[in-house]
Order: sequence, then structure tokens, then C-alpha cells
Amino acid sequence: MTAYDPGNIFAKIMRGEIPAHKVFEDTEVLVMMDIFPQSKGHVLVIPRAASRNLLDADPVALSSAIIHVQRVARAVREALRPDGIRVIQFNEAPAGQSVFHLHFHVIPVYDGVDIGRHGQGRADDAELAAQAKAIAAAL
Amino acid sequence: MTAYDPGNIFAKIMRGEIPAHKVFEDTEVLVMMDIFPQSKGHVLVIPRAASRNLLDADPVALSSAIIHVQRVARAVREALRPDGIRVIQFNEAPAGQSVFHLHFHVIPVYDGVDIGRHGQGRADDAELAAQAKAIAAAL
Repeated sequence: MTAYDPGNIFAKIMRGEIPAHKVFEDTEVLVMMDIFPQSKGHVLVIPRAASRNLLDADPVALSSAIIHVQRVARAVREALRPDGIRVIQFNEAPAGQSVFHLHFHVIPVYDGVDIGRHGQGRADDAELAAQAKAIAAAL
Repeated sequence: MTAYDPGNIFAKIMRGEIPAHKVFEDTEVLVMMDIFPQSKGHVLVIPRAASRNLLDADPVALSSAIIHVQRVARAVREALRPDGIRVIQFNEAPAGQSVFHLHFHVIPVYDGVDIGRHGQGRADDAELAAQAKAIAAAL
């Protein structure tokens, strides 16, 4: 496997070099809105520990991450009332990974609304900010 | 959320009432082949603890489960040499959940091979048995 590259965009966001619509952060994870969402309220849970994906992750960081995923999924459910939630994690480009720092997608699903393809379009900043605030309030 | 139903098929498999192509089992999880695979080597990691999905899961069971997911993903990589791996977990039917006992999908992705839709067809038992054996050997 290719080594971890600290120049990836999530590492830059965590270092404060690039802004983001943050939902929550602590010493272990950063939770933020996906700016190319597949549905309304698509959130990313990103462990701070450096790993390319799940395959090379520290098991302790991974355990912490999935607990945060659960908390975030519950908050998304409370804030946005979706009909279901998908949790997805991609390893390597052929699987769909586009940023090579471990992250989990928390994707709300709404009855009658097709899940978009990732990267189909950048979301409106005001909408992302409002969703981040609503999810943070439910955390 | 609807309550946990112990009559689901994964609970039956864990109680030994229905056979399965098991890869690994211990006191915490059962790992088995998905008999309606989305790709060659599609594996399910199923915590024994009763929960409908990730939303109502015990955090300790969840932490244990994701560590097993990592081990299984690494074993799948070693045994089958896919080009990528997707880890997917569905919550509620609109999101794609069809068995209401928490489980993680570990889905190998191969360059040039489209990921099938779940439930499109039952896999050959001899092939599933051979894959289970190869993945177990790599665990």
C-alpha cells in the first residue's frame, strides 16, 4: 500500500490550513459536512490519527472513530429525520476513496430521494452551515 | 425505532438453526460469506450482541466489531488481491438494510468489474466455501 501523504486535504483542514463546515472536534476526531454531499446532511467522521484508510489504521483510533460515527449518526437522525442512514468507508481509489486519510461517510437516506453520486456538485455554503449547526445541536 | 427481532436470519444462523459459509467466529462476532454477494469475496461481520443496527448498538460491541472488520478486510486483501475494499453498514430499509441485526459488509472491488446489486443472485456454494477457506487462512 502507498504510504500516508500528510498533504491530503483532510490533513490540511485539521491543521487549519483550509476552512471547513465543522460539526464537532476533539482530540480524537474531526466531524464535518461533506461539501460534495450525496444527500442532505452527508457528514464525514475523520480520526485525527494519520492513516491512509481502514487497512493501515491504528485499532485504538478505529474503535474511537466508530463510536463517534454512532454518535453522529444518531445526531443526524435527530436533526434531519431521514428514513435511513448509510455508513460507508472506502479503501483505495477503485473502491471510491478520493482523499487518502481515513474517514467514514454518514449518509442520510430519504424515502423517494435518490442518493447522489459523490462529487456531482458542491453544496451551498449557507445550507451546509445550517446543517452543521443543527447536527451539532443534536450531538 | 422498531425493536430488535430475534427471529432474523442472522440470529438463526448464530443459534445454529441455519447453515452458513462461516469464515471465523468467536464469542464476539460471526464472520461469514454473503450468499448474495456484490462481488467475489463479499464478507459479513456480525456482532453476536443483539442490536437492530448501528444506531442502537452497544458501543463496546461496536468497537469490537470494527476491529474485526479491519482484520477481515486485511485477510480479504491478502486472500483475494482486490484493487480496493468497501466497508458498508446500512441502517433501516430505505438505506438498504434487509436483515435487522447489526452487520458490516466488507466488499472487495476489482478493477474493471462492476459491483453487483445486493440480492441479484445466489452464489455457488462450492465457490463460497473456497473463498471462506482462503479468507480464513489469511486471518
